[in-house]
Amino acid sequence: MIRFTLLSLAFLGLAINGFAQTTSDQIASIIEVQQYNRAIHIMAMLLIGFGFLMVFVKKYGRSAITATFLLVSVALPMYLAIKSMGIFHSQGEIEQFILAEFGAASLLIAAGAVLGRIKIYQYMILGLLFIPFYIFNELVVIEDHFHFIGTIADTGGSIVIHAFGAIFGISAAISLSTLKQRETPIEADATSDRYSLLGSMVLWVFWPSFCGALVPPEAIPYAVVNVFIALSGSTIATYIASVSIRGKVNAADIANAALAGGVAIGSTFDHASHLEAMIIGLIAGAISTTGFAIFQAKQEKFHKIVDTCGVSNLHGIPGIFGGLAAIVVVDGLDMSAQLKGILLTVVIAIVAGLITGKIVSLFGTPDHIYDDEAEFEE
Amino acid sequence: MIRFTLLSLAFLGLAINGFAQTTSDQIASIIEVQQYNRAIHIMAMLLIGFGFLMVFVKKYGRSAITATFLLVSVALPMYLAIKSMGIFHSQGEIEQFILAEFGAASLLIAAGAVLGRIKIYQYMILGLLFIPFYIFNELVVIEDHFHFIGTIADTGGSIVIHAFGAIFGISAAISLSTLKQRETPIEADATSDRYSLLGSMVLWVFWPSFCGALVPPEAIPYAVVNVFIALSGSTIATYIASVSIRGKVNAADIANAALAGGVAIGSTFDHASHLEAMIIGLIAGAISTTGFAIFQAKQEKFHKIVDTCGVSNLHGIPGIFGGLAAIVVVDGLDMSAQLKGILLTVVIAIVAGLITGKIVSLFGTPDHIYDDEAEFEE
Amino acid sequence: MIRFTLLSLAFLGLAINGFAQTTSDQIASIIEVQQYNRAIHIMAMLLIGFGFLMVFVKKYGRSAITATFLLVSVALPMYLAIKSMGIFHSQGEIEQFILAEFGAASLLIAAGAVLGRIKIYQYMILGLLFIPFYIFNELVVIEDHFHFIGTIADTGGSIVIHAFGAIFGISAAISLSTLKQRETPIEADATSDRYSLLGSMVLWVFWPSFCGALVPPEAIPYAVVNVFIALSGSTIATYIASVSIRGKVNAADIANAALAGGVAIGSTFDHASHLEAMIIGLIAGAISTTGFAIFQAKQEKFHKIVDTCGVSNLHGIPGIFGGLAAIVVVDGLDMSAQLKGILLTVVIAIVAGLITGKIVSLFGTPDHIYDDEAEFEE
Repeated sequence: MIRFTLLSLAFLGLAINGFAQTTSDQIASIIEVQQYNRAIHIMAMLLIGFGFLMVFVKKYGRSAITATFLLVSVALPMYLAIKSMGIFHSQGEIEQFILAEFGAASLLIAAGAVLGRIKIYQYMILGLLFIPFYIFNELVVIEDHFHFIGTIADTGGSIVIHAFGAIFGISAAISLSTLKQRETPIEADATSDRYSLLGSMVLWVFWPSFCGALVPPEAIPYAVVNVFIALSGSTIATYIASVSIRGKVNAADIANAALAGGVAIGSTFDHASHLEAMIIGLIAGAISTTGFAIFQAKQEKFHKIVDTCGVSNLHGIPGIFGGLAAIVVVDGLDMSAQLKGILLTVVIAIVAGLITGKIVSLFGTPDHIYDDEAEFEE
Repeated sequence: MIRFTLLSLAFLGLAINGFAQTTSDQIASIIEVQQYNRAIHIMAMLLIGFGFLMVFVKKYGRSAITATFLLVSVALPMYLAIKSMGIFHSQGEIEQFILAEFGAASLLIAAGAVLGRIKIYQYMILGLLFIPFYIFNELVVIEDHFHFIGTIADTGGSIVIHAFGAIFGISAAISLSTLKQRETPIEADATSDRYSLLGSMVLWVFWPSFCGALVPPEAIPYAVVNVFIALSGSTIATYIASVSIRGKVNAADIANAALAGGVAIGSTFDHASHLEAMIIGLIAGAISTTGFAIFQAKQEKFHKIVDTCGVSNLHGIPGIFGGLAAIVVVDGLDMSAQLKGILLTVVIAIVAGLITGKIVSLFGTPDHIYDDEAEFEE
Repeated sequence: MIRFTLLSLAFLGLAINGFAQTTSDQIASIIEVQQYNRAIHIMAMLLIGFGFLMVFVKKYGRSAITATFLLVSVALPMYLAIKSMGIFHSQGEIEQFILAEFGAASLLIAAGAVLGRIKIYQYMILGLLFIPFYIFNELVVIEDHFHFIGTIADTGGSIVIHAFGAIFGISAAISLSTLKQRETPIEADATSDRYSLLGSMVLWVFWPSFCGALVPPEAIPYAVVNVFIALSGSTIATYIASVSIRGKVNAADIANAALAGGVAIGSTFDHASHLEAMIIGLIAGAISTTGFAIFQAKQEKFHKIVDTCGVSNLHGIPGIFGGLAAIVVVDGLDMSAQLKGILLTVVIAIVAGLITGKIVSLFGTPDHIYDDEAEFEE
């Protein structure tokens, strides 16, 4: 009898163990497939979102889209190749891929600053040079590989994706733009504006999947709603600021600054309350619109356009603001680490951008800029 | 020995209980993340879908997109804020958010009726006034808070989202439109039509996620296929009806009436057979196209355009048809509740729309309508 | 005491069994909902992707979109209706639906070859005739219903979806095109190109969900990354080949050939290493661009345009190349089955296409081709 009981117990134990193992494996696979869904959302942002946002340059649409295709196609395999070299700790297949997409996003932001001023194949060179610098910054600031920073709050990449990309891009633009390029005006029309607003909407819609890509399932609901709330805040603030400053609405303000809430909430969306998310969004939208409506407009007036898409106003300033907002919002944050992380990112981005811009400029300068005809058939 | 057996049993029981608890929690999280995926699909419909569908007005594209951005950004936080006031029973974070998206969808439908006839900031006022009325109707008809309706079939919102929004919008349009506005023709061209068809396709693709957003996982497969079948039916019927009535195809018919199957199946997609779904889709497409090709065309002929986007033909009539179709399709339906629900929704929408239209009109009337230039730079 | 122990054991066993059953059912539902997510991604490819890719024909945009709507709306219900007739083994609801989407994809490819040369209602006839032939080929080659092929590697449909559709389409085009049609030039402009590139990007983004739609969860991560790598490869190769052959970039090359990696990886993405995926992508992009830049260009020069969208260059050749690549890449592949599968698919597609083209042509030939005005209002 006792033997029977013991045997039953053992059998039961084994069966349960087997079932538990299978179930855990299945759940792990399911969670990774859910990450994959967010990876697809991010891919929509990279190609359709960033791609079409840059189609606002009236005569440069086909080139902007081709550049986007090439930047993404260079960045993803290169990031994966470097990360598979064995000096980095290994990660899940999709997790690694999402990190590669983050790198591609940062690269597209950087490219926005020099858009239309380099030949199409030079975007590929830009990508090849950018990714190693980006990985280096990731290593220093996020993984704290050299142990002199500590842990920072930046799950959605306000600092290491947005600010890094923007500052890199502007630095590259400074070191590669010619005087003639700075004096060439950028033209948009109703059709290019509508394409740009399409790209903007794609970015808006999928932004929560960008921020929440690597967040564990149980934390996703509250965090993604925060992202939508921040985007709503920046959209409202953008409209109000645009009309207040300019007297009329400006399509570029709407297409860009409406997204500033997404940029700024990246460091805090997994810690903020819904009210804090709304406040961060409102401030980010107002800051970003001010950037476009006052600073960008002034640059254009004095024929000194350096930053084609105004990435400093959308990703640079709001990104740093987002990183700083964490100091107020995140309980138990290591403030010194956060400030060091921001500072180091800025420094690395400036140096890397200046070097890269110089190298890219060695491959020549296009005669006609902001124009497809230079390199496209017909 | 017995002590050992008992201890083993107790230990096993505890281990199993812990595992079961963890597994249940994980599965609950996974299911909520799946809801989140559908929330993203709905967001694509709200911004890109509804937004670009309204870009058919040739010169009003940037305004239509900006209006969409603002309507969504006002509606979502406002719905969430009201619902968090404590007088409503609490819900999952994503569930609540999806209900807010439903409200935003209904608002966008309402806005379609007055599109181009109000100033851009007036869309925000429209949104602020709409959401409380929408929540009131939800409370009365869906949650049956006052216990005089019973349970109705309307999971996908044929009645409370589509018909409510359309009737509210037309009522608002009646009370705010000036004679001059009604006589101003609406112009489209090949480019604005293609944008509009893009919006239409985005709506078509993600419609099953709209209907099925809050359906439990095991009921999703059959139900979502029903939605696709209904959409296929309305698309085919739209083409045939458009050519039959007009002699030629009309882009606005295709962009709009092709979606009528999605509108009409909302009350029954979780109960109908595939064949019933096809029949509902075919009828809805034919009804809707007749609305656009005969009634809308007549309105335009007599210079009495009230409903800019023709939301009565896409959301109004097909929505009510869908609500009535449940009487035939859904087993054990409380017919009196269904009829009372439809009737009350219509009454609330008319009253709320007339009041709202009047209030919005107090903020002024634009001089130039259907035209970006009035409020946009350049 | 013993009775108590036994009772406890029995109770525990029952409770565990119940929990295990519930958990397994929930996991099965969750996995099917994940398939549904991929079904939505595929639907985005069918309507927005294929639809807008075909909008490159400058004056035929509204017709191309309407044709896409109708082709999908005819194909899906028809496929589901035939498959529910009882002679096929039953499948999960979403699995069946995804197979229907595969059929619709193949049909859209076929339609690309005759785009603009038939009246709009003739696309519906094309769809009605295509689907039975497609199901027949599926039965013969994939399900090996007549037991004379064996098992082939083609999870993502390089052979049975892409090559079949392309060869069917070209055969139909040959048998229905008039001499006058072949001599009519196809015109594109900057706006139609940007729409086309939008469609291309939508296809690129969601392609991994197309290939991986029916792959089990645990195999998805590695396989989908392979698809993205292959697409990156073909995108880079396309740009390089386009500039090398033509001297300038060509928008149609980018919009089409950048996708060739996705076409070609369909037979091997679930077996290849990341490096093999990159190589397959690079080769496919180069082959496809050569097709567009040399063969298509020559056809146009000699006024002998047969294949409107160049589906032979995007889906035909790269599809067959992908099917052959499996011979090198897939361990333990039945080479003779693979070759027989390819050959039979080609033969069935040619015969079916010629017959279908002849039948469609019996319904007449449009006077004006590649032009919306022929059948659209305004």
